Amino acid sequence: MSILTVPRLRRSGRDWPGHRLVVADELPLDCGAALGPFTIAYQTYGRLNPERSNAILVCHALTGDQYVADPHPITGHPGWWTTLAGPGGVLDTERYFLICANVLGGCMGTTGPREINAATGEAWALDFPVITIHDIVRAQKLLVDRLGIEELFCVIGGSMGGMQVLQWASSYPDRVFAAVPIAAAARHSAQNIAFHEVGRQAIMADPDWCGGRYLKEGRNPSRGLAVARMAAHITYLSEAALHRKFGRNLQDRNQITYGFDADFQVESYLRHQGSTFVDRFDANSYLYITRAMDYFDLAAEHGGSLPAAFARRQPRFCIISFTSDWLFPTSESRALVHALNAVAANVSFVEIETDKGHDAFLLHEPELFATLRGFLTGCAEQRGLPRFWT
Amino acid sequence: MSILTVPRLRRSGRDWPGHRLVVADELPLDCGAALGPFTIAYQTYGRLNPERSNAILVCHALTGDQYVADPHPITGHPGWWTTLAGPGGVLDTERYFLICANVLGGCMGTTGPREINAATGEAWALDFPVITIHDIVRAQKLLVDRLGIEELFCVIGGSMGGMQVLQWASSYPDRVFAAVPIAAAARHSAQNIAFHEVGRQAIMADPDWCGGRYLKEGRNPSRGLAVARMAAHITYLSEAALHRKFGRNLQDRNQITYGFDADFQVESYLRHQGSTFVDRFDANSYLYITRAMDYFDLAAEHGGSLPAAFARRQPRFCIISFTSDWLFPTSESRALVHALNAVAANVSFVEIETDKGHDAFLLHEPELFATLRGFLTGCAEQRGLPRFWT
Repeated sequence: MSILTVPRLRRSGRDWPGHRLVVADELPLDCGAALGPFTIAYQTYGRLNPERSNAILVCHALTGDQYVADPHPITGHPGWWTTLAGPGGVLDTERYFLICANVLGGCMGTTGPREINAATGEAWALDFPVITIHDIVRAQKLLVDRLGIEELFCVIGGSMGGMQVLQWASSYPDRVFAAVPIAAAARHSAQNIAFHEVGRQAIMADPDWCGGRYLKEGRNPSRGLAVARMAAHITYLSEAALHRKFGRNLQDRNQITYGFDADFQVESYLRHQGSTFVDRFDANSYLYITRAMDYFDLAAEHGGSLPAAFARRQPRFCIISFTSDWLFPTSESRALVHALNAVAANVSFVEIETDKGHDAFLLHEPELFATLRGFLTGCAEQRGLPRFWT
Repeated sequence: MSILTVPRLRRSGRDWPGHRLVVADELPLDCGAALGPFTIAYQTYGRLNPERSNAILVCHALTGDQYVADPHPITGHPGWWTTLAGPGGVLDTERYFLICANVLGGCMGTTGPREINAATGEAWALDFPVITIHDIVRAQKLLVDRLGIEELFCVIGGSMGGMQVLQWASSYPDRVFAAVPIAAAARHSAQNIAFHEVGRQAIMADPDWCGGRYLKEGRNPSRGLAVARMAAHITYLSEAALHRKFGRNLQDRNQITYGFDADFQVESYLRHQGSTFVDRFDANSYLYITRAMDYFDLAAEHGGSLPAAFARRQPRFCIISFTSDWLFPTSESRALVHALNAVAANVSFVEIETDKGHDAFLLHEPELFATLRGFLTGCAEQRGLPRFWT
C-alpha cells in the first residue's frame, strides 16, 4: 500500500486534520477525459480488523464532506453524522471501520475545481472536467483498493450519498456486502434539476464569479453562492417542519417593521444558512457536484431498464425514505424496491413517518436509528463480525 | 366622477393601451404613512349595466397585471386570463363588466417604486412605503368608488389575487355580492415567506440593484430578478407537471454534453422564464409585492381569530383549491372554509383534481371552468342579472 498519511493538510492558510491519499494513476472519467494525478482526502474512524471485513464506506451528500464524526476544521461544528457515528453508536466505531472520502469535485482536499491543475499551475476552475456520480464512485473504489479492502461490509449514504451507494451496488456489487441508500433515487427528477439550475444561475449571475476564475482574480461569488444555498435549503425541509420551527414568528421584534429586514424568523434562519455556507464551500464545486447529481440516471446507463442496472448478484439492501421528503419522495425509493425485486435481490424497505423532510437523515430520528441498527446488526451476524473485535 | 381616461399611457418610451385614474386624495397605508397623489392604471372589459350591478373585480397575482383579456403591451402575449375572460367565456364580457387594476406597488402604471415621487422628482425606489394586501385593496376600493359602483357583483382572483378577494370580504363585505378566492390562503406560510426571501436576496445580491437606485444609476438588476423568477416559477408547478412536461428530456441534443449549458429541457425552460420576465417586470416592485404577500395574515388583524375576520355578513363564497398545489395547498382553503362555516357564511368549496400545480388557475382546467360558470350563473340569477343586458 502506498498510502500517504499526512497528519495535517495545509491548504489556503488553514490547517486541518485529515488524511490524504495521492493516487498517481489516471482516473478515466465518463466524459471521456482522464484525470491524474489526483488526490483523495478522507477520514477514518475506528480500526480495520485483521480480516479487513468491517469497513463501512460512508458517502456524503452534496454539501457534506469527510468529517463524519469529528469537528469540521473550518466551522468547528461537530461532524455531520454524529447522530449515528461514534463508539456505541449505530455506526459503531468500536465494531466498524468507517471511511469517508471527500467527493471528486469537492472542496475539502479531494481534487476539484479549486485545486491546482498541474498542467497550468493555476486552479482548475471551469477547466476541471464535468464529473458524474460514477466518477465519484470510481475514485472511492481506488481508495478502497489502496486500503486493501476486498469487500466493504457496507456502503451507506443519504441523498447524493445514496446515489453513490446505488452506483456502487450497480457497478461493483461484488465489492459490497450491504447497501443502505437513504432518501435517494435512481435518477434525479426534473424538479430537482430545476432547483439545481436555479442555484447554478445564482452563482453564475454573481459578477464575482468571473466566469469561474474568481480564485485567480482574488474574488469570491459569495452572494450568489449564498442565494443558491438558501433556495436549496428550503427543499431540505418540509412545509410542516418550517411551520413547526418558525411559523410566522417574528425575529427579535414584536411587530412587523414594514421593511426588508428579516422580520420573520424563517428569513433570519435562511440568511444565516446562506452566509455561513459560503465560509466553508466553493462555488465552482457547487456547480460540479450539482451537475453530477443532475446527470445521475442509473436506468439510462442500462438501456433504460432499472432492473438491468442491478442484474449482477446484489448486496443486501436496506432502502429508507421519509414521508415528508419532497426532494426524494418515497415514490423514488419504491421504484428502486420494484427494480430490485425484479432481480430477486434481498431488499428491506422502510418508509419512516416524520415531518422533518429530506434532512431527516441528518437529524435525531429514532426510527431511523432503530432501523439501521437492526439491519446492520443482522448483516454483521451474517458476515460473522464480532461485536468487539479488539 | 373625475375619471381621467387616457387612451394611450406613455411611459418609458413605450406606448400601451390603458386607462388611468388619478386619485388626488391621500391613501392611508397600514404602515402609518399616507400616499398621494397617486395613480391607478386599470383595464375594463364589457360594459357596466345601467344598474351598475354587473361589475366583476378581477384581482391579479404577484407578477400579473391589468391586461386580463387583451394583449400585453410589452410582450404582445394574450391577456393572462383569456382562458376565462371574453365574450361567451366564464367571465362573460357580454354579461359582466370586468375591471382589473394594476396593484399598488406594481410596475404597469399604478403608483409603485419605479414611478416618480413628486416630492423628489425621482423614482420612489426604496423610499416607496412598504404596502400590504389591505393597502392594495384600499386603492382598488377608491377605484370602485370612482366608477360609481356601490356593490361589486363579484371579486375574483387566484394566488395573491385570492388574498385580495379575502381582504375585500373581510374589510368591505357590504360592497361584494360574491367572492371567489382561488388557490389562496388567509395567511402566507413560513415556506412561502422563505421562497420570497430567496427571491428578494437574489435581487439585492445583484450589484446592478444599487441599493434600489438602479433607475437613477441607469442600471437594471436583471440577473438577480431572473434568478428570483426561476426559483418562484418552480413553486408554481407540480413535480408531476414538471415530470410530464420535461422529465429528463434533453434540449436539442441526443446526449449530455458534460457542461453547464442547458442540457435538459427543464433548464432551458426555466432560463427562458427568467430572461423574459425581466423585460416586463420591475425588480423593486417584486420586492414590495412579495413583502405584501408575506405580511398577509387575516387572522392576525383580528386578534388571531380567522372567524373574527369574517364576522360581518359575508358575500357568497366559492373557494377553490388544486390537489397538486404545494404553494397554497388545499389545507389552507379548508382553514378558510372552517372559519367561514363558523360564522354561518354561504360557502361552496371545490378541490380540483389536477397535476398542474398552483398555476392551474391560469391554465386550461375544465373542472375549474365548470365550477366557476355554475357558481357565477347561480349568483347572477340571485342577483337578477339578465343573461345579456344590452
